[in-house]
Amino acid sequence: MFMGASTKQGQDIALKSREIVRSLISDKIEHLSLEEQSIVERIVHSTADVEYAEICHISSDFVKCSIESIKNGKDILTDINMVRAGINKYSGEVKCFINHPETIKMAKKEGITRAAAAMEYAAENGFKGIVVIGNAPTALYKVIELFEKGKMDIESVIGVPVGFVGATESKYALKSSQIPHIITKGPKGGTPVAVAAANSLIQLSKDNKRRKPDEI
Amino acid sequence: MFMGASTKQGQDIALKSREIVRSLISDKIEHLSLEEQSIVERIVHSTADVEYAEICHISSDFVKCSIESIKNGKDILTDINMVRAGINKYSGEVKCFINHPETIKMAKKEGITRAAAAMEYAAENGFKGIVVIGNAPTALYKVIELFEKGKMDIESVIGVPVGFVGATESKYALKSSQIPHIITKGPKGGTPVAVAAANSLIQLSKDNKRRKPDEI
Repeated sequence: MFMGASTKQGQDIALKSREIVRSLISDKIEHLSLEEQSIVERIVHSTADVEYAEICHISSDFVKCSIESIKNGKDILTDINMVRAGINKYSGEVKCFINHPETIKMAKKEGITRAAAAMEYAAENGFKGIVVIGNAPTALYKVIELFEKGKMDIESVIGVPVGFVGATESKYALKSSQIPHIITKGPKGGTPVAVAAANSLIQLSKDNKRRKPDEI
Repeated sequence: MFMGASTKQGQDIALKSREIVRSLISDKIEHLSLEEQSIVERIVHSTADVEYAEICHISSDFVKCSIESIKNGKDILTDINMVRAGINKYSGEVKCFINHPETIKMAKKEGITRAAAAMEYAAENGFKGIVVIGNAPTALYKVIELFEKGKMDIESVIGVPVGFVGATESKYALKSSQIPHIITKGPKGGTPVAVAAANSLIQLSKDNKRRKPDEI
């Protein structure tokens, strides 16, 4: 298994792609740790968009805190089901509460988005682990708020909501917080970015060797 | 319900975003029909990447064939589950066979990717409708091959696989085929593009009014 590919042909494609990605962005990410490079490479591989090599920002504690969370089997919480569907190699639980009846009730009652209410629901129901926001700025704001009030047990946040309304600002708020994080600066981000970052961390947590992670 | 948002706050964000998208790309898509404009706008909304206004190519029969397929309740077939998870407002069936035991068996036996084998499995099991490829070039090639051999009953293809290995070429092959299609030129594409195009078509098929689709 390499980068989600399970067949020989799939693995060959993934390997060749990874080589191309490296040739395109290696000079832009050489200041990062090997683990961080691996995450950014996978994001560029998943989006075929080299701009991500320049707009990813990773806090210095992000990799360590995230890998520890994964090694301890803590939960991964996503804002939308599309993100959850992509994180399909984790031995722990990947949760999404956007369609949960309590979330829907809470969203209506408080006049907030369902994505934000889903974060509140998770916090109230014992969530501990990594939060992955690939879509909704409102969910990211809620996570920061809950963390700062001491109401949510967060190890790290993959905060890459996408869009022209609020996404940039919400990621800046995360960058300014004490939460270990990865963000993408500006409006870009989204499901493939979120999924690539999460899957890369899962791969890294399995990798005990000293050489460059994600390589076979 | 507007562009997937079900709460007032969610709808406000979606509407404001759509306005911004229009202001950014309207001059680049004015040569398209209103329905085609609506699809491209939604793709740019979903990716926050205005480049999609320039790299989307839609065949002249794509919208008509796709909407007819949806109105007749025919299937939507996706290459990966992440794409399926995003197409969550269709009253018909959205299918994905990448994890089907027969697909896995076929992939091993034929030495092809599971995404490609999943297309073959669908074709052999009575699939009729729209194919949505958001990830795997190998699946797109397989779909074109099956169509040209008269072995797959396809109304249209959303062909937006992503990546530096084969994606560009596979989309060019689709563009050169007789299949009604949307593609993105070059390596870019992926799940959010595929999902945006599919959801836009579903919205358009519900819209019987003469004014700009996707507007409330």
